[in-house]
Amino acid sequence: MIRSQPLTAHDLESVVREIAPTDNDAAARAEARHASLTKPPGSLGRLEDLGVRLASISGRERPVIRPRSLILAAADHGVAAEGVSAYPSEVTAQMVANFAAGGAAANVLSRLADVRVVVLDVGVAADVDPAPNLVERKIRRGTASIAEGPAMTDSEALAAIWAGLETAESEVNAGARLLVTGDMGIGNSTSAAAVTAALLGLPAKDVTGRGTGLDDQGLARKVAVVERAVRRHGQVNADPVQVLAGLGGLEMAALVGVILGGARRKVPAVLDGFVSGVAALVAARIAPLAMEYVVAGHYSVEPGHRKILEVLELRPLLDLEMRLGEGSGALVALPLLDAAVAVLNEMATFSQAGVSERVD
Amino acid sequence: MIRSQPLTAHDLESVVREIAPTDNDAAARAEARHASLTKPPGSLGRLEDLGVRLASISGRERPVIRPRSLILAAADHGVAAEGVSAYPSEVTAQMVANFAAGGAAANVLSRLADVRVVVLDVGVAADVDPAPNLVERKIRRGTASIAEGPAMTDSEALAAIWAGLETAESEVNAGARLLVTGDMGIGNSTSAAAVTAALLGLPAKDVTGRGTGLDDQGLARKVAVVERAVRRHGQVNADPVQVLAGLGGLEMAALVGVILGGARRKVPAVLDGFVSGVAALVAARIAPLAMEYVVAGHYSVEPGHRKILEVLELRPLLDLEMRLGEGSGALVALPLLDAAVAVLNEMATFSQAGVSERVD
Repeated sequence: MIRSQPLTAHDLESVVREIAPTDNDAAARAEARHASLTKPPGSLGRLEDLGVRLASISGRERPVIRPRSLILAAADHGVAAEGVSAYPSEVTAQMVANFAAGGAAANVLSRLADVRVVVLDVGVAADVDPAPNLVERKIRRGTASIAEGPAMTDSEALAAIWAGLETAESEVNAGARLLVTGDMGIGNSTSAAAVTAALLGLPAKDVTGRGTGLDDQGLARKVAVVERAVRRHGQVNADPVQVLAGLGGLEMAALVGVILGGARRKVPAVLDGFVSGVAALVAARIAPLAMEYVVAGHYSVEPGHRKILEVLELRPLLDLEMRLGEGSGALVALPLLDAAVAVLNEMATFSQAGVSERVD
Repeated sequence: MIRSQPLTAHDLESVVREIAPTDNDAAARAEARHASLTKPPGSLGRLEDLGVRLASISGRERPVIRPRSLILAAADHGVAAEGVSAYPSEVTAQMVANFAAGGAAANVLSRLADVRVVVLDVGVAADVDPAPNLVERKIRRGTASIAEGPAMTDSEALAAIWAGLETAESEVNAGARLLVTGDMGIGNSTSAAAVTAALLGLPAKDVTGRGTGLDDQGLARKVAVVERAVRRHGQVNADPVQVLAGLGGLEMAALVGVILGGARRKVPAVLDGFVSGVAALVAARIAPLAMEYVVAGHYSVEPGHRKILEVLELRPLLDLEMRLGEGSGALVALPLLDAAVAVLNEMATFSQAGVSERVD
């Protein structure tokens, strides 16, 4: 199945066909197990739902979510030249070097949550030094500015999806039982807002936020850029890959592939914030069943993220007003998944512990 | 300072005098450090605030919150005989045995978060078998039913506070740099509702919930019991220890001591749900400064807990619809504190990583 030629729309269809629904029997067995454990039924709230969900994804009453990998997709955005970010474009490559050196938030939070970091360069503009955790799959050196024309060609978008899909499957082949999505790319919240506006048919101002910290003037400029881009090449309800090619980013496309690849292999993908959310939205349009395999880590501060979560009917675990990207919001949520799994795997039952059950 | 005779009101005053404000300088240094780390300022949201808070508590720009201990206070409630719980009273002692055997949610979640479990028996009705992690400080065999008369005497309440305070200080002496509060006691959400109604001057129906899972009829019975108890011996704005003695529980009193003891030793207490919240409310009335040392772990489903959090101006980290007690909601939140600390302690600065700063 896996190969290194660019993906075609036909290949994508065959991936989609191989995504199966999650396992209702395993979910029912996990629910029955919850009822037997020494706690009032339902008293662990959403932690119980999460355990059942992970059981249905893995097909095991006692799910396993280790080892796990963060796939941190990085790429540049031509639109950054329009003054839509508080940081210059060269920060993308500098942060990729920081990921290699282990000093970024993504590294710190991954160490804490026992997650392997895989940095996937699908489109950083500058040359990137080789590093043990770096997968070099540069499709092109950043996208073109969406303020001027399409971000990339359809086949470049497909190639980036394929790079993400291959990287995800390679991690699963190496043992990963859970994937975390992360993104790095100066300017990518502009691109994410444009894709969101186009796919959901929403006005630019409702889905465009301050990103890494724009002031009011910067935000107004960003909204105008998103409006113009969507008007030019963001036909509502168009083919999702075409919208991605017109308005999206290479790292976004790669994360679409990570989500589809994880779903095909029955491995959950824990989603970070806005850029990961856009990838999920595109993945859902390509393969609705893939959504059964995703868990939303957190609410980003970005307004477009909330809209996507509503449409996908995803309810994140955390709401900590984070807006960093890099997978940070998903990584911080990961211990909640560990807790959900540990409860199912390790708690004593009423009969094992000799504890009386309910009086009614 | 520490001794094993019962506490008097005079002793409590001397503890209160020794609670100092948290360290603003350390907080400012942590804020400055955050600004130097390779992330947009503020992009980690509440995680950054939490790091600063832990810095101010510990007096260190790079806080340390390991090792840590859960103090799981257990006691019975005479009011359980009024049919206000879905479980029989003997479950308190059975769960204490389950804690000793390591099979309860508190044990599983503590192992996951690297927390030592200390079970503090301040009033379990039955005899409890000795166990390595059990501290035996039974003040009396459960409270009297608050539906009939006061739960306990003032000096019993003070003795239970003292037992909690001594247990907390003993953990800190053994190295603990963070405490987690947990409770076990069939019937204790009735008692917690009564204390909340009395101290906040709220109607019983606004602060009384379903506890471990009452049906509508059970809930109505519980509200009536709380109303009657508060009317009889829950004078609004009375001395907090008197309210605790009249309506509270021995485990609740012990957790008041844990919070005061932690604050005196500049160690944060991570609060679990409703019963821990009531303990914090009482501790705040005794020593307002102690609130600078508490972190609210989660929102419990119990309506009285929300009221307490509002009054104490505490904003929990998690909202997972949990209602188990045992410290479970605090334990699940603990990795967020670890993440907040790891960011401060381990991330690279802009200059270390050679990353460009903002363009404006």
